[in-house]
Amino acid sequence: MLRVGLLGAGRIGQVHAKNIHLDPRSTLAAVSDFLPEAANALAGRYDAAVRSTDEIIADDAIDAVLIASPTDTHADLIEKAVAAGKAVLCEKPIDLSLARALACQAATRDAKRPVMLGFNRRFDPNFAALKAAFGAGEIGKGELLAVTSFDPAPPPPSYVKVSGGLFRDMAIHDFDIACWLFGAVPERVSAMGSSLVDPEIGALGDVDTAVTTLYFADGRIAVIKNSRRAAYGYDQRIELLGSDGLLSVGNVNETTVSRASAAGVTGAKPEHFFLERYARAYVAEWASFVAAAFGEAEVPVSVADGVNALAIAEAATASVKSGAAVEVSV
Amino acid sequence: MLRVGLLGAGRIGQVHAKNIHLDPRSTLAAVSDFLPEAANALAGRYDAAVRSTDEIIADDAIDAVLIASPTDTHADLIEKAVAAGKAVLCEKPIDLSLARALACQAATRDAKRPVMLGFNRRFDPNFAALKAAFGAGEIGKGELLAVTSFDPAPPPPSYVKVSGGLFRDMAIHDFDIACWLFGAVPERVSAMGSSLVDPEIGALGDVDTAVTTLYFADGRIAVIKNSRRAAYGYDQRIELLGSDGLLSVGNVNETTVSRASAAGVTGAKPEHFFLERYARAYVAEWASFVAAAFGEAEVPVSVADGVNALAIAEAATASVKSGAAVEVSV
Amino acid sequence: MLRVGLLGAGRIGQVHAKNIHLDPRSTLAAVSDFLPEAANALAGRYDAAVRSTDEIIADDAIDAVLIASPTDTHADLIEKAVAAGKAVLCEKPIDLSLARALACQAATRDAKRPVMLGFNRRFDPNFAALKAAFGAGEIGKGELLAVTSFDPAPPPPSYVKVSGGLFRDMAIHDFDIACWLFGAVPERVSAMGSSLVDPEIGALGDVDTAVTTLYFADGRIAVIKNSRRAAYGYDQRIELLGSDGLLSVGNVNETTVSRASAAGVTGAKPEHFFLERYARAYVAEWASFVAAAFGEAEVPVSVADGVNALAIAEAATASVKSGAAVEVSV
Amino acid sequence: MLRVGLLGAGRIGQVHAKNIHLDPRSTLAAVSDFLPEAANALAGRYDAAVRSTDEIIADDAIDAVLIASPTDTHADLIEKAVAAGKAVLCEKPIDLSLARALACQAATRDAKRPVMLGFNRRFDPNFAALKAAFGAGEIGKGELLAVTSFDPAPPPPSYVKVSGGLFRDMAIHDFDIACWLFGAVPERVSAMGSSLVDPEIGALGDVDTAVTTLYFADGRIAVIKNSRRAAYGYDQRIELLGSDGLLSVGNVNETTVSRASAAGVTGAKPEHFFLERYARAYVAEWASFVAAAFGEAEVPVSVADGVNALAIAEAATASVKSGAAVEVSV
Repeated sequence: MLRVGLLGAGRIGQVHAKNIHLDPRSTLAAVSDFLPEAANALAGRYDAAVRSTDEIIADDAIDAVLIASPTDTHADLIEKAVAAGKAVLCEKPIDLSLARALACQAATRDAKRPVMLGFNRRFDPNFAALKAAFGAGEIGKGELLAVTSFDPAPPPPSYVKVSGGLFRDMAIHDFDIACWLFGAVPERVSAMGSSLVDPEIGALGDVDTAVTTLYFADGRIAVIKNSRRAAYGYDQRIELLGSDGLLSVGNVNETTVSRASAAGVTGAKPEHFFLERYARAYVAEWASFVAAAFGEAEVPVSVADGVNALAIAEAATASVKSGAAVEVSV
Repeated sequence: MLRVGLLGAGRIGQVHAKNIHLDPRSTLAAVSDFLPEAANALAGRYDAAVRSTDEIIADDAIDAVLIASPTDTHADLIEKAVAAGKAVLCEKPIDLSLARALACQAATRDAKRPVMLGFNRRFDPNFAALKAAFGAGEIGKGELLAVTSFDPAPPPPSYVKVSGGLFRDMAIHDFDIACWLFGAVPERVSAMGSSLVDPEIGALGDVDTAVTTLYFADGRIAVIKNSRRAAYGYDQRIELLGSDGLLSVGNVNETTVSRASAAGVTGAKPEHFFLERYARAYVAEWASFVAAAFGEAEVPVSVADGVNALAIAEAATASVKSGAAVEVSV
Repeated sequence: MLRVGLLGAGRIGQVHAKNIHLDPRSTLAAVSDFLPEAANALAGRYDAAVRSTDEIIADDAIDAVLIASPTDTHADLIEKAVAAGKAVLCEKPIDLSLARALACQAATRDAKRPVMLGFNRRFDPNFAALKAAFGAGEIGKGELLAVTSFDPAPPPPSYVKVSGGLFRDMAIHDFDIACWLFGAVPERVSAMGSSLVDPEIGALGDVDTAVTTLYFADGRIAVIKNSRRAAYGYDQRIELLGSDGLLSVGNVNETTVSRASAAGVTGAKPEHFFLERYARAYVAEWASFVAAAFGEAEVPVSVADGVNALAIAEAATASVKSGAAVEVSV
Repeated sequence: MLRVGLLGAGRIGQVHAKNIHLDPRSTLAAVSDFLPEAANALAGRYDAAVRSTDEIIADDAIDAVLIASPTDTHADLIEKAVAAGKAVLCEKPIDLSLARALACQAATRDAKRPVMLGFNRRFDPNFAALKAAFGAGEIGKGELLAVTSFDPAPPPPSYVKVSGGLFRDMAIHDFDIACWLFGAVPERVSAMGSSLVDPEIGALGDVDTAVTTLYFADGRIAVIKNSRRAAYGYDQRIELLGSDGLLSVGNVNETTVSRASAAGVTGAKPEHFFLERYARAYVAEWASFVAAAFGEAEVPVSVADGVNALAIAEAATASVKSGAAVEVSV
């Protein structure tokens, strides 16, 4: 049984707490949060202790920590937990600064136990099935990847302000998908972005609508479309063109019900947002971490993967400003 | 907390045990099975006691029993559990004999606690969404209902022999769906059937391929297509034509992945069989029973519903033999 | 060049006139209609002569006649045209009376030139592709056929009165599809019908909603769903379950455009009615007749096919009344 | 009746010849081609005269010319035909050189009769329906346009050599679609391309796989994906995200037939290539030109539209080389 300390009892921490509880091989031992009520409520639900973050990391009876605290604490907590010999699963991103992320990577290079980054989408059953089909050669050699990634509605300006911008906060998932599918880090990045959804986002110097193109050393190309608003709900799709065909992941809808009427044939809306769409992915992600913690499998998403995606985000951010393609340096 | 005794630790009992355990408002207290190893294994997994069926029913600390034992024990166990003041959820059917089911209905008419029959499909999120849309008037008045219900592969002859035949064993679910959607019991039933899938099924006097038409007093019609074999997997769909349009539930596929190649565009297979397709339905069914057991809601599937579906199955079985439409008598 | 006389300049006659004109191997030589204006207008459009029906049949310079006149003239005109040595394409049905159709079949058995019946659906590219795939063994042995056939809106009572009823007028197409796909005539027919769409149809003794089940000698089963009203437009689909899988023809929609909005994902409506849905089928039907008239191919739909479908319609009509399955006698 | 001279009897000339013949308001009067046999064969099929290009342009009895000759003759022939007072429909592009196209635009600015460019896709019923739905405000304000445009197989190197490259030859259609839908010319263009499909294409200095991003002055963004090879056939789709939803045009498949088997659910392949996919578009394009020639409607695709698309193609070609975004200058 893996005894887990959860650092952060917010929205995503609650998702993880439930999955830790439901997984037959892990148990939620302790919870910390800077809001005591949040920690109390969550700990109470699963019979866990409320502790400070430092206490949890120092406790030898805790095998692993799940870091679901604010982004600016991630790198520090990863380093501390690794130093204390814990297995670590940290929500993305490592940090908003590539330099800090690189330092964290260096500091944890010799970690004795697995350190994993929470890129949830890799664990979506649909994306995973596409990856497997591609790996099995079903479309030959990959050539052109297209990722569609639209949120249902923009976050509040208060969040945008500390988010690191659309590329570091949102598109970073899609950059990771591209690296994961192509098994490589792109050489160059070109991005165009604008603020069409919410003028406040533009006023903060960020974009809410963007297209990023990634060029890989061997000529493969990936293109990512992002928008902070899709009136119909979360839209998360992939199309991968290869020499022998096209693999696609369609969006996931709430039901298979459709209604034909004088207005046309109307199917269900997509799952509203990531908590619904990726509910199964979070379960699989946790099971995958548990397996790594028990030494049964490699960590499927490494700190290096987090660094790579962040480096692309940094390049995309620079490209929108300069209008030129930007080299990715990692 | 609802303390539950599970009677039967087979395939479907195991599904229920897990859902009883996961539901925050119920706990698996005891398990019985005529195979001690089966009871032991399941009880061990969820920290439950192994007891005899009679002990469980007699135990005042048990609030509810879930009957997942062989069909020929259902009616007796329902009656005993009701007599002992338990809330009861029983797998379908009540019995293979309509007379016995009617007797059970009479015997349990004054039950103090809820008695519910496990027609799992009503709890499928897709079918439930169709029902809700229909109830909301989205297609006006219902006129013509079509249910497609194909199993992936035929059961072994040993099962067929004791199953009561395709109509009582398999189509009974679809008959319940028709009654549920139309809010009525049909007046007449006409069925045609043959044995095309497995000659052994025919040799046992049963059919493996059938079409049943239900005629309701006000002229509405429902048609059910059944086959014991669909090479592509479980196929469970509904189409309901109304005065203002058509509501459909499409099959549920394993993923949203598709592959376009020189051979065409290939999407995922459907979920393989009922354990996969109705996994979410079983969870919702159990939550619904718990709510009824706590007096928060009506029992959504009554013993009378089980009797009605069985009466239709009996009529369909007779119609295949006589070649004429048969009145439904309940 | 096949010189064609068109008997009947109504809605369907106009469709045929255009296709006769566009086919590089046929020319519209003459048109007759009991309404002189209709004949004049159509003949004028394609530089054809206006003649009486008798003149056309008597004219040795006319190679073929297309009979698109009222149903009660079909059998007489087929016989006269055959006697005059013409190749004949006649709109369905041969007659509303099975006895008359059988007499026509007998009278034309020794026709020297092809006599073809216009079951347009066989020529629909989608249905034809399903037939070809089935013939190629893609789903093994056929077992259970389901045909959905809904009109967008009911015809006026004046039409219903002379139509011969839903089974002879509308479902006859679907009966032909079943015989065509299964390569056999069913042994028994059972039907249920009611009048839910338009009470005037019921008052005329007809039904507007029906389910017909066909039982073939070797146990194969076909089921036909008919409604005179689908608020969303024409609905013409086939599903054929075989030992190795399922072949389906989906409905044909006006466009591939869809719109995702807060209300769901809405695709285009189906083609409105048969003139739109079967536009390509009529072209292919005509080309197929021309090939037969030139002796290059067998007639793809024979008078016997028309007789068979009518016999099924007669049995279905009787079954609705008697409530029993009715033997098909041809 | 519009009397038409066709300049060029190749593959696309043959498509136009048929549509000119079938349109009730136009007639094919004369055909020219540098290969006499080609001109003879086509003229023979439609009872047209074979003439030289100069004779056709000089003939006062010819009302309109359709230019379907090699690209390097387009601009000259447009100018000559306009000078001779003809209505002109010219296949895209005007020329491979933007300077020459601009000169042609200047020379034909005062044309007395319509001059139209053959961007066939605008006349595809699906794309036209998307445009109409967008114009009707169905998704609010447009924000992010994505066009997928893959050919089934690369052209031979001999064609690539004279084609002007992927952007001028193939993507130019998609650039026109973007301008047409957004009603504007983009301000800046960024493109990445590589040669992954056929190394000979790379050796000729061209690309066969490319992503082009267009940035419009008001912040709207369009992205075009191109490949010279899709193993499954022609792939032509549009997705347009707006403030209130998403409009999509799906690919057009050969049939609506699908097959469910142990391997999954396989639908039909897309229409193979542009002659099949855009067959209806060519008919509508011609009808639209005829209406313009008769003064009933504006020319729907102007020479200026051709210039704009070419300017974008030129910018994209430059961007692939420089790695920077390039301003569009028209």
